[in-house]
Formats: sequence, C-alpha cells, structure tokens
Amino acid sequence: MRKLDHVAVVVNDLEEALSFYRDQLRMEVTQRRLLPEEGVRVAFLAAGESHIELLQPVDPESGVARFLRKKGEGLHHICLQVEDIDAVVRQLVASGAGITGPVREGAHGKVVFVHPRSAHGVLIELLQPVEEAASAGNMDKAQTK
Amino acid sequence: MRKLDHVAVVVNDLEEALSFYRDQLRMEVTQRRLLPEEGVRVAFLAAGESHIELLQPVDPESGVARFLRKKGEGLHHICLQVEDIDAVVRQLVASGAGITGPVREGAHGKVVFVHPRSAHGVLIELLQPVEEAASAGNMDKAQTK
Repeated sequence: MRKLDHVAVVVNDLEEALSFYRDQLRMEVTQRRLLPEEGVRVAFLAAGESHIELLQPVDPESGVARFLRKKGEGLHHICLQVEDIDAVVRQLVASGAGITGPVREGAHGKVVFVHPRSAHGVLIELLQPVEEAASAGNMDKAQTK
Repeated sequence: MRKLDHVAVVVNDLEEALSFYRDQLRMEVTQRRLLPEEGVRVAFLAAGESHIELLQPVDPESGVARFLRKKGEGLHHICLQVEDIDAVVRQLVASGAGITGPVREGAHGKVVFVHPRSAHGVLIELLQPVEEAASAGNMDKAQTK
C-alpha cells in the first residue's frame, strides 16, 4: 500500500462540477481526458499527493451512467496505489474477496477493481503505476515506450 | 488546499471491516477511538499521507446510523485539509455554497462540513489542523497543551 491515489466522484456535468471544485475550492486541474472506451469524460484535481477525479458519463450505457441514474451525483470509488498488484490480488482471492475480472493495463498502470460487497460497500480500484511495473524487472521495455 | 486528509467509510461492524482493510489489504491501523458525542467508534488506516477512516455507529440516533440504515455500508465523506478554513468558508458562503453550521473545534483542528448539495453529492469535511491554527498566531497556547 503506497498511497491513496484518487477519490472518484460521478457528476452530471463536468463544467458545473469544476465551477465548484476548481473555482470555489481553488483546486488545481492537473488533467482532463475523454475516455471513449469507458464512456466517460474525466478531470483530475490535485489534493496533495492524491487527486479528486470527476467523472461525467458520455455514454448512457456505461456503468458510470447507470450509477448516476440510480444513485445521483456523489462518491463512486477510491483508488489505492500498491507496490505489487499481483500479490495483493492473490491475497484477496485466497481470502474469498470478489475481484472484477483479471488485472488489466490501464492508462496509468496495472489496475483491478475489488467488488464493494467484499470491501464493506466501497468500490476499490487497485493501481500499480507504470513506474513500479518497470522497476520490478521490465525497465528496458518501459523505457522504449 | 493542502491534501486529502481522509476518506470516511461507514460500516456495520468495525472488527469485520478491519479484517478486510487491515488483514487483507495490509493497511496499518494508526488510531482507534470511541467518540461518544458523535455516536461513533472509529479506526484510521494509513494510506500514504492520507487515511481511510472506518466509522461504526454506536448510537442509533446518530447521523452515521441513519446513513447506514438508509444507504448501507459505503463511502460517507471526504476530508480536505486547508490552510485557512475561515477564508475558504467566506469564499464558499459568498458563492452560495451550503455550510453545515459554524466552524467548530474538532479533535484534530478546526472543522466544518460542506453540504453535499453544494459539492455535487459529496459530503466534504474541511479541516484546518491544530498545527496550522497554532502557526497562525496561537503557538504558545498550542505548545502548552
């Protein structure tokens, strides 16, 4: 467990949400992206070594869109950075925890989600950042990317 | 905005929740407290410079108990550390944001909550830690505590 990477918030409209988080709370926007494959538009705001990720669905069939229709705006998931995601997943699976699919390569590293029913109602994203994967024996390959 | 201080999770049973967060995710418990005036039992787990706070209601009339009955276990609020809580509150009030009561002295410093309807569904605790209050002209008093 290295740190709390980010806390994700589902919102109806990214610009309206930024007018609160960026303009009123004076948080700095560090990244904005459209992620078509996940059906969301995102913005990251800095909070020390962590971030708040604002998520606006752009595809009505996305999981985030369903969450918004069912529960409204609010906290969606937290993301924890880990040193060795495969070791954590082995530990979780051995303990009977629910994992949503295999570990996959995401935009920022290797990721997997722990089901809320195993984490006391919290959807937890586990992230092993790209740099960590590189230092674990894959340095040459990572450096040529 | 200094950092994301903690993310709070409401749980039915603190010991069961610790068996996941402490024993399976291998997070370190840094503090455990009973807060009778708030009707909760809490445990803090380290995640880098942030923490996850587990909240178990012990008073059925507490807000946390009502949250649990209505929504079940899950993410409850986030806490952001700020440099100057009075300045942030002035800014928020001037912008029409809803604040839950005046700034009060909490266990870790000056705190206030921003209503979820003003923060896109997120209950946000703002915290100006004791140390910051001290460095702003109250050093002698703080040092004698």
